[in-house]
Amino acid sequence: MDLRTIWWEKNEVRLVDQTLLPEEYKVISIATPEALWEAIKVLRVRGAPAIGIAAAFGVVLGVKDIKTDSVDDFLQQLDRVADYLATSRPTAVNLFWALDRIKRVARENQTQGVDGIKKAILQEAQAMVEEDDRVCRAIGQHGAALLQKGDVILTHCNAGGLATASYGTALAVIYTAQEQGKSPRVYADETRPLLQGSRLTAWELHRAGVDVTLICDNMAAHVMRDKGVRAVVVGADRIAANGDTANKIGTYMLSVLAKEHGIPFYIAAPVSTLDLSIPDGTHIPIEERNPDEIRCGMGRRTAPADVKVYNPAFDVTPAANITGIITEKGVARPPYRESLAVMAGL
Amino acid sequence: MDLRTIWWEKNEVRLVDQTLLPEEYKVISIATPEALWEAIKVLRVRGAPAIGIAAAFGVVLGVKDIKTDSVDDFLQQLDRVADYLATSRPTAVNLFWALDRIKRVARENQTQGVDGIKKAILQEAQAMVEEDDRVCRAIGQHGAALLQKGDVILTHCNAGGLATASYGTALAVIYTAQEQGKSPRVYADETRPLLQGSRLTAWELHRAGVDVTLICDNMAAHVMRDKGVRAVVVGADRIAANGDTANKIGTYMLSVLAKEHGIPFYIAAPVSTLDLSIPDGTHIPIEERNPDEIRCGMGRRTAPADVKVYNPAFDVTPAANITGIITEKGVARPPYRESLAVMAGL
Repeated sequence: MDLRTIWWEKNEVRLVDQTLLPEEYKVISIATPEALWEAIKVLRVRGAPAIGIAAAFGVVLGVKDIKTDSVDDFLQQLDRVADYLATSRPTAVNLFWALDRIKRVARENQTQGVDGIKKAILQEAQAMVEEDDRVCRAIGQHGAALLQKGDVILTHCNAGGLATASYGTALAVIYTAQEQGKSPRVYADETRPLLQGSRLTAWELHRAGVDVTLICDNMAAHVMRDKGVRAVVVGADRIAANGDTANKIGTYMLSVLAKEHGIPFYIAAPVSTLDLSIPDGTHIPIEERNPDEIRCGMGRRTAPADVKVYNPAFDVTPAANITGIITEKGVARPPYRESLAVMAGL
Repeated sequence: MDLRTIWWEKNEVRLVDQTLLPEEYKVISIATPEALWEAIKVLRVRGAPAIGIAAAFGVVLGVKDIKTDSVDDFLQQLDRVADYLATSRPTAVNLFWALDRIKRVARENQTQGVDGIKKAILQEAQAMVEEDDRVCRAIGQHGAALLQKGDVILTHCNAGGLATASYGTALAVIYTAQEQGKSPRVYADETRPLLQGSRLTAWELHRAGVDVTLICDNMAAHVMRDKGVRAVVVGADRIAANGDTANKIGTYMLSVLAKEHGIPFYIAAPVSTLDLSIPDGTHIPIEERNPDEIRCGMGRRTAPADVKVYNPAFDVTPAANITGIITEKGVARPPYRESLAVMAGL
């Protein structure tokens, strides 16, 4: 597993344009916050941890050419850039977490002057990339310990290297199990409408030599019943204090199906995905996206142009359906209000 | 609702080429059993009742130009055509039911000579079209009686006019409710991989003025929980003696989700879909289709070309998850072994 999704190079952000996969692996350069906002919006970069890092770099891009000696003025402009980037997508909390972290570091370095702040926030964004790798590998270790040799795993959307800086969350569990010689076998839901499962998860698992079989989302129940699925492992975009979890649309469905078939259902996510400021999932805003993602998303019109469409990008899985939440600090178990507070160091 | 899917005209079969919808409504002419076999195989015509009718006409096409005075010889050739057409798709029992019916009528008219048999089987196939319309309207009546004004219905795949000669099975329930002023509101699963829900169901409901909203298959659980779904109504390809039902992949999933949300789950199908010769669903062969339907089905490659794919076209819903089976004879209720035998007139 050797994949880099997002990094800083020559005063620009470099990222793998995920809208082009699997047909083309292309690294693009992004030089402005506006271009970065667009890249998040249209999912050139996606996945809760990755968009957090992207947004952090976006702030750096937005302030690096500001010429002023006034720290107050500089911080005001920095806040405006951060607020703008926060409007790119509403559900993943890592976006807001990363922006808050950059704003805090900027203030902590006020005495260093404008140039000092610029240097500090770039270092912080780059530290996030390195930290992300350590966090993902720890998630992989904690998660792989839950798996036996030859286990069949079902996953949804892409919580892989492409959703983080490099190693993934749900897929970190699979990569680590693979490295441990456990030879996991994976069913990957294609994940309509944008097919992150077929375009990204199948691509990166296949590339890493993992035994992966692609299915349509509506085959998951049939596969659970007939193919010996031993665990469902997915990522998360936001986890409330009680454990309710927002993740890609279809995750709630899988949690119900896993319960029906007696299969453990795991969330894998860094602590930065916890939002302990909200008591439960009813407080998580759910992004609705363009109807044409469903009506004509893949090169061909596949529905009447004027038919009504409902296109929520996420759903909320109730804590009661979740067997465990795998973080870099260990596996949180119910009751989550207590175990997640421990993970968050509260 | 005024739609004809398949009929006989000028010594040929005419049918709406459903692979072209919703972009193009085109009626094609089919003159040979080989062309008809291909049309069934690639789903130009699909839906259990419609492929039954298509196969019946296919036998007519295959024998109409046979020049012989030997009835035995003629019947042998007719059987070969029927056996060939039976290989087009394995799951829907209506295909075999229709072919058996044509073979029986041919034998019943042996004394009429070759020309008499030819005339009798064409009349029989045409009678199937008219019968299909009566059957579908009766299914609509029995099913609509289960619905209240303004009910929200979820359906899957296409069990509509396009799946029969004209009026549908699951969608007959909706059309009848609409005609009764009950103004049903419908969520239609797009139904991957071939999108019969978005291409066909959304198209025909929208065309008929029914309030329809298109969703992806993985949104069904979220919609059941948050949008007040009051019933799931789907079609069937084969129903075993105990009520186990094969239908489009994803149906089993919906039955589990409906149970979780306390929503009635109905199958709508003609008695010709019953296969009382098999005790339960384990005896139903499940067709597996081309992996490229999932890897690159919509005009664009959406998965690595060489990634493994599992592509079952159907799944089996256990009788225990089915609230009722709506047929032209009424609504069968559990225990199905008894109620279905009554429906079949046994």
